[in-house]
Amino acid sequence: MKKIAIYDTTLRDGAQAEGISFSVKDKIKIVEKLDALGVDYIEAGNPGSNPKDLEFFKSIAPMELKHSKLAAFGSTRRTNKPVEEDANIQALLRANTPVVAIFGKSWDFHVTEIIHTTLQENLNMIQDTLQYLKDKGKEVIYDAEHFFDGYKHNPDYAVETLRAAAAGGASWLVLCDTNGGTLPLEIKEITRKIVKEFQVPIGIHCHNDTGMAVANSFIAIQEGARQLQGTLNGYGERCGNANLCVLIPNLQLKADYYCIEDKKLKELTGISRWVSELANMAHDEKMPYVGNSAFAHKGGMHIDAVHKNPLSFEHIPPEVVGNERRVLMSEVAGRSTILSKIRGIDGRIHKESPETKEIIERLKSLENEGYQFEGAESSVELMIRRKIGAHKRFFEIKDFRVLSEKPWKDDNSATAMIKVAVGDQEAVTAAEGNGPVNALDKAIRKALEVFYPQLKNNRLTDYKVRVLDTNAATGAKVRVHIESTDGENVWGTVGVSTDIIEASFEALVDSIEYFLFREMEQEE
Amino acid sequence: MKKIAIYDTTLRDGAQAEGISFSVKDKIKIVEKLDALGVDYIEAGNPGSNPKDLEFFKSIAPMELKHSKLAAFGSTRRTNKPVEEDANIQALLRANTPVVAIFGKSWDFHVTEIIHTTLQENLNMIQDTLQYLKDKGKEVIYDAEHFFDGYKHNPDYAVETLRAAAAGGASWLVLCDTNGGTLPLEIKEITRKIVKEFQVPIGIHCHNDTGMAVANSFIAIQEGARQLQGTLNGYGERCGNANLCVLIPNLQLKADYYCIEDKKLKELTGISRWVSELANMAHDEKMPYVGNSAFAHKGGMHIDAVHKNPLSFEHIPPEVVGNERRVLMSEVAGRSTILSKIRGIDGRIHKESPETKEIIERLKSLENEGYQFEGAESSVELMIRRKIGAHKRFFEIKDFRVLSEKPWKDDNSATAMIKVAVGDQEAVTAAEGNGPVNALDKAIRKALEVFYPQLKNNRLTDYKVRVLDTNAATGAKVRVHIESTDGENVWGTVGVSTDIIEASFEALVDSIEYFLFREMEQEE
Repeated sequence: MKKIAIYDTTLRDGAQAEGISFSVKDKIKIVEKLDALGVDYIEAGNPGSNPKDLEFFKSIAPMELKHSKLAAFGSTRRTNKPVEEDANIQALLRANTPVVAIFGKSWDFHVTEIIHTTLQENLNMIQDTLQYLKDKGKEVIYDAEHFFDGYKHNPDYAVETLRAAAAGGASWLVLCDTNGGTLPLEIKEITRKIVKEFQVPIGIHCHNDTGMAVANSFIAIQEGARQLQGTLNGYGERCGNANLCVLIPNLQLKADYYCIEDKKLKELTGISRWVSELANMAHDEKMPYVGNSAFAHKGGMHIDAVHKNPLSFEHIPPEVVGNERRVLMSEVAGRSTILSKIRGIDGRIHKESPETKEIIERLKSLENEGYQFEGAESSVELMIRRKIGAHKRFFEIKDFRVLSEKPWKDDNSATAMIKVAVGDQEAVTAAEGNGPVNALDKAIRKALEVFYPQLKNNRLTDYKVRVLDTNAATGAKVRVHIESTDGENVWGTVGVSTDIIEASFEALVDSIEYFLFREMEQEE
Repeated sequence: MKKIAIYDTTLRDGAQAEGISFSVKDKIKIVEKLDALGVDYIEAGNPGSNPKDLEFFKSIAPMELKHSKLAAFGSTRRTNKPVEEDANIQALLRANTPVVAIFGKSWDFHVTEIIHTTLQENLNMIQDTLQYLKDKGKEVIYDAEHFFDGYKHNPDYAVETLRAAAAGGASWLVLCDTNGGTLPLEIKEITRKIVKEFQVPIGIHCHNDTGMAVANSFIAIQEGARQLQGTLNGYGERCGNANLCVLIPNLQLKADYYCIEDKKLKELTGISRWVSELANMAHDEKMPYVGNSAFAHKGGMHIDAVHKNPLSFEHIPPEVVGNERRVLMSEVAGRSTILSKIRGIDGRIHKESPETKEIIERLKSLENEGYQFEGAESSVELMIRRKIGAHKRFFEIKDFRVLSEKPWKDDNSATAMIKVAVGDQEAVTAAEGNGPVNALDKAIRKALEVFYPQLKNNRLTDYKVRVLDTNAATGAKVRVHIESTDGENVWGTVGVSTDIIEASFEALVDSIEYFLFREMEQEE
């Protein structure tokens, strides 16, 4: 088993992704998670170019890390100036990390056209800067920016820049595909040559501009690179960086490499989702290994085969990375999926029971009406419960009215009035909202919380609307999908109507009812 | 330039993605787009397993395609039964497409453990089925399911299954990485061997379960595969299929392959975004080539360098694929487009006029609020008219109220009351509808038709709702897009609000106002 050093740059390159902005507190939380996961290096910021990062390095200084080494990131010194007078280099020292990562130019075009200096001065800048930091007691990692583009244009010069870095005392030479445009077999050939040529171990840093960051990194490692740079969920400038949540399992489960402890692999799905939440980015559910759809089966033949043997349509067992198998409810899913759902509620019912047929027919007719039960399995469960008499009426909505008005005052454009009954008690209440559905949602909760105070912990996390027959214009049917959570569990429900208020109402009531069922069952 | 045949399976494998459910009308629109793009094959459904697909094939039969060939997809015949008695095979014939794609088992484990038959009978099933369809005049493409897994376990048998398909008359042998777990260098080696061994041309079909579907497909083509199977945006079962929106530019811009006309490449970004809207899936903005972030620069050094020379941080010029460079936080793009729109209304206004700056700033701020003006150019025109004083107030909506009630009688769940003013005349009226937006739509028209009887010919042809920040739940902003027609022209308008009634109202009022402007101009 060959050890691959994992170098995470979520906090630096990842933070250059559109839409991402980590606070100092967020960054500290991410450092703790990465350390617990067992990555080798954490590149935590660029103190020279970003004053917020220097503040962060100060606040993190007293933290004791169990496994990871912290790195501060910055450029080689400026042209024609002694390194000790360079403000960015001084900021790197003030960051007070055991490791400093320095990037420099490998591509002659960048040297002459972008930073406007001579090829020789660029070599001096690389060597000077590394030597200076090394003398200050730092481990120095060298990032060869645009290495592959540089090598393709002028291989001799690109190699010379690496020699300057090695002479300056670099502990790693990292080959960067900065523009993300290099193809796998180019990466393969160039990495092979460099690995042979240098004693210093080689790292790989890929971007995803051709959709191949994962494959390019993997191939570089097969050719002898021993440090992998990437980010959680592949966050990064433009199309992102190599995704560590995909590469770590690829390396550890599909080839003979060791990155983190095997038991830590199980935490990957959780960490991936956690960092999406923290970054306030929609979680990419199609992500290999860690997405919600990664082991979700929809085609009927796939589902049947997976029931016979999961190996038939799963390349690894999902639990190894902390994920799980899901069988989606849809028109392409089979009878067996629904039966197992029914038997989960009442084990006495079997394939030939009249209830089974009735439920399957009801589901089909609902699907024809425009319902879609994927991601709304809780609505299916409630429907089954109603059909087989395993249902309890926690509450009844006697009636409601929603009034929308224009012009309106303050932020509220709608008012909802509602009457609910729980047992033989009734309650009438009203609420305002920034739209009719929001007002109704608030009114339902307000009315029911009197009877079920535990609903206070229950909130919606997602609300989606789909117009089904868009050419029926404003008279069209709409389908509403909502997702709810009590902080621990997540469940989805669905409603369909030509009236968006009614469709939303249906999904909302199902969501609350499902929550109360779960609660009741847990208490039993 | 080597020609690569593009085989799109968005409508079949893509429809097996979680969250995707295309209506028959959606499917027809997608076929039209793919044909215009110039893909070679369109795999449009599985008529045997899905009754909705058969309905679709019937309705598409009279369509004349300019470039693409339609394919119906299905399995080899069942075990131990003559092919002519197989219901799925008969459904394939009824689909009435020039091409049929048949998948069969290549992996001995699937033959014995999943479909429970002998290795010989599986070979018979492949050859019989293809021969039968070929005799019926079909072009038959063979999809070797789990080919790479099969080859790794039992290479001789996997190759035998291909021989059976070739003997049955397959026009292509497509190697499928069905579970998506195969690594790039395995794909390389196996594809190379198969290409050498067969006269029949080879295709490649990859899934993304290790994040390498794009690289794996690309490498297979480098090794001699000449048909590429994939989907728009990489939609597909689990982690998705190979993404054609990424692979087509990779092949055509970065290597010596020809897939579609060069000028069609410019449409890729638009098509990719269009299909996301149609599928009601969030567009993945990090997508290579076609994502909104693909050429978005955020890091300060990157922005400086791109201003000096875009080549420094862009692997291709974004306009080649119809995308554009974005500099985050200091956006200047789109200025010339807007200017030409302004000058279309008032030719005296130029680049430096204060109105131009004001309009661009207003558009930017509206886009930040969630407006999207693609397909809603009429709303942009009205906004410009208001800003430059080229506007006429045809009517004013003084106020409205919409009341939604449950329970309700007959089909109408909502009533709208409205007061409009035209010149110094006022009118108050009311209408019922099957939802609040429908009621308001009817009330507006009823009130205005008194003054503008020509509105009777004006109707909505499309109504779409998109929840913008779905995790704000029922308090989220929604964007409403509507499309209207007077029987001759079609125009689009947009509205945004947290209140769906208000957002719809805005788009409705713009639609009517735009119609009255056109009318007035035609009369002049």
